[in-house]
Amino acid sequence: MLAELIRKPSRLIIGLMSGTSLDGVDAAIVRVEGCGLTTKAELVAFTTVPYDDRLREKLKELCSVEHSDVALVCGMNFYIAEVLADAAKRAVAEAGLSMADIDLISSHGQTVWHIPVADERDWALVRSTLQIGDLSVIAKRTGKPVVGDYRTADMAVGGQGAPLVPYADFILFRDEAAGRIAQNIGGIGNCTAIPAGALPEQVIAFDTGPGNMLIDQAVHTLSGGARSYDEGGQWASQGTADGAIVAEMMRHPYFAMKPPKTTGRELFGKAYAERWMERMKAAGLADADIVATFTAFTAQTIADSYRRFVLPDAPAQEVIVSGGGAHNRTLLAMLEDLLPEMTVTTSDAMGISSDAKEAVAFAVFANNFLFGVPNNLPSATGAPVPTIMGKLALPG
Amino acid sequence: MLAELIRKPSRLIIGLMSGTSLDGVDAAIVRVEGCGLTTKAELVAFTTVPYDDRLREKLKELCSVEHSDVALVCGMNFYIAEVLADAAKRAVAEAGLSMADIDLISSHGQTVWHIPVADERDWALVRSTLQIGDLSVIAKRTGKPVVGDYRTADMAVGGQGAPLVPYADFILFRDEAAGRIAQNIGGIGNCTAIPAGALPEQVIAFDTGPGNMLIDQAVHTLSGGARSYDEGGQWASQGTADGAIVAEMMRHPYFAMKPPKTTGRELFGKAYAERWMERMKAAGLADADIVATFTAFTAQTIADSYRRFVLPDAPAQEVIVSGGGAHNRTLLAMLEDLLPEMTVTTSDAMGISSDAKEAVAFAVFANNFLFGVPNNLPSATGAPVPTIMGKLALPG
Repeated sequence: MLAELIRKPSRLIIGLMSGTSLDGVDAAIVRVEGCGLTTKAELVAFTTVPYDDRLREKLKELCSVEHSDVALVCGMNFYIAEVLADAAKRAVAEAGLSMADIDLISSHGQTVWHIPVADERDWALVRSTLQIGDLSVIAKRTGKPVVGDYRTADMAVGGQGAPLVPYADFILFRDEAAGRIAQNIGGIGNCTAIPAGALPEQVIAFDTGPGNMLIDQAVHTLSGGARSYDEGGQWASQGTADGAIVAEMMRHPYFAMKPPKTTGRELFGKAYAERWMERMKAAGLADADIVATFTAFTAQTIADSYRRFVLPDAPAQEVIVSGGGAHNRTLLAMLEDLLPEMTVTTSDAMGISSDAKEAVAFAVFANNFLFGVPNNLPSATGAPVPTIMGKLALPG
Repeated sequence: MLAELIRKPSRLIIGLMSGTSLDGVDAAIVRVEGCGLTTKAELVAFTTVPYDDRLREKLKELCSVEHSDVALVCGMNFYIAEVLADAAKRAVAEAGLSMADIDLISSHGQTVWHIPVADERDWALVRSTLQIGDLSVIAKRTGKPVVGDYRTADMAVGGQGAPLVPYADFILFRDEAAGRIAQNIGGIGNCTAIPAGALPEQVIAFDTGPGNMLIDQAVHTLSGGARSYDEGGQWASQGTADGAIVAEMMRHPYFAMKPPKTTGRELFGKAYAERWMERMKAAGLADADIVATFTAFTAQTIADSYRRFVLPDAPAQEVIVSGGGAHNRTLLAMLEDLLPEMTVTTSDAMGISSDAKEAVAFAVFANNFLFGVPNNLPSATGAPVPTIMGKLALPG
């Protein structure tokens, strides 16, 4: 069955991605040709299936040392697999396709724990990562071969198991003539810089800093919980950013650290946002100014990252934005102002919906697995070698 | 790479099995020809790598709701994988082979939780099973493709995920002319009855009752902890079984239950053994008589199971004993006395070491996976359909 899939001129692959934000499952149906550097991926359909509140709360329990136990891991590994299989079926139905049209499913799984560095307090807590959503359950429910659970393989060879998407950025956006930076703006911002005609080892990938995280938090607080994000960047467009405060915020030591580097909610979470909101209010900023200031700060962290750590070694002419931040027109306009020598587009312009890019990436990973071709990017994960990530479960 | 493996006339496969007794890892190197019903398996080498006390204690924590959490599952999933990879390497070295001689590794993993029936107290505790020992870690450490984590697939299609070994019994011991019963005597006793020329659906598999569990407990208690089992059945051979007490013990309702049925330590554990030891002492039995009585009871549960539930529908002429109990000559002699019309042999006589049979079974499962051939036995697990169990991780 797998040998036949390899011989087909193209394969229809469903990429399933469920992020640490516990929002739900992204399902991208992707037509994939070739493999490795010859890969061509075309997005056919995309859908997001949100988790319900009950599931989100249970996952939060599972993701905490205090509230989790082995029985909950056991049960939820199966439960989430059913949710993932349902998301695949829903994506197929919404696209007007039938499961018979699909060749392969790729599943990231739900991350429930990650130990980047061995914990000295307990010898059993070795470097490791745990994604749940049993692949066999998905395969039996959908009747399709399923590849997934990628991160462990990269960690096994010495990488951080993250970030994985830069490999797909490299494959999908690499250009012989143009240097490009794929910038994802989710909760956190991260970039993959791909010099013109780059070899894998020339790609630079790291977290630029907060993505939508601070803007979302400010909007949530200032709207009294009524809104969760600044739609289209409209609120920010009505205010004026305070340049002095942005400059002050830029002194955070994260921005001086050399890549590879990663960050998250522990540095730029709610506490950080509220501290600066206090500061801005004390300086007399109106609500719209506050949102604008966080937006300008976010744009500045991105542009500044490029000037410090990317452009000196890896000249680039294009920025390709994906993730929720791609819909924030104020943020994009600020980014254009800060990078006048570059063109700023969204990945939609490259044929890949900016919302779907991560799920598309997982379709690319499964396709490589099928061909026995490595699908990690050592320069991004820190792995000493390229390796084939993923595990395969069969239907039938 | 996998296509090449399929074309080879035979494959050298390492089967890794680690049981719920938390003793350690059994590693069998097996030469496998064919697949499915045409499978021929020859044991090349076998080794057991015991867990150290620190690991055993940590696994006990992991296998308890009170002492486990998601971080421990995450870390131990990687840690155990290293132990499994080391066991594979040790088996290869001890056999005077090199890893280059090996085609494939099969890993059962360490069972840390099992939910046979959905827990009504918590919707998240759905029917499920959890075996740890990340397959990608084993693949990267050994440089070999690894198939493993079998049980989830059988549960996904509606089976109990257990017992799995009867499929291998069926494949390895099925005979056109002779009806055979493969009897494993581990902690628990279980049998696979394979009528002459049987189809898969004609195989009967169930737990006959206690295996070595009661004998071991009696020996442990009576020797003041100095011995953990009755080597060769020697102690029992010095005593006389009390037939009246055996008859009394046989009234336990488990023996009247129709198969499929499974049992464990919760029915025939330490408390049960000590209660009967009190009874035997009160009846004036000497230590050797007590061991002999438990041994006779164990033999009786096996023979009785056959007479009630196997022989009426599935005539059989041979009993093939495997597991630790195969070394208990007193137990085997008692079984011969109770089944005079049958021949009682050990699986060693069939070319498969009675200690290695479970690990050999897993080599057979991985081989089937490679060919895309189902490897569960619905009549044993209760699954409504045959299905391909296992997941594949690749090296390189």
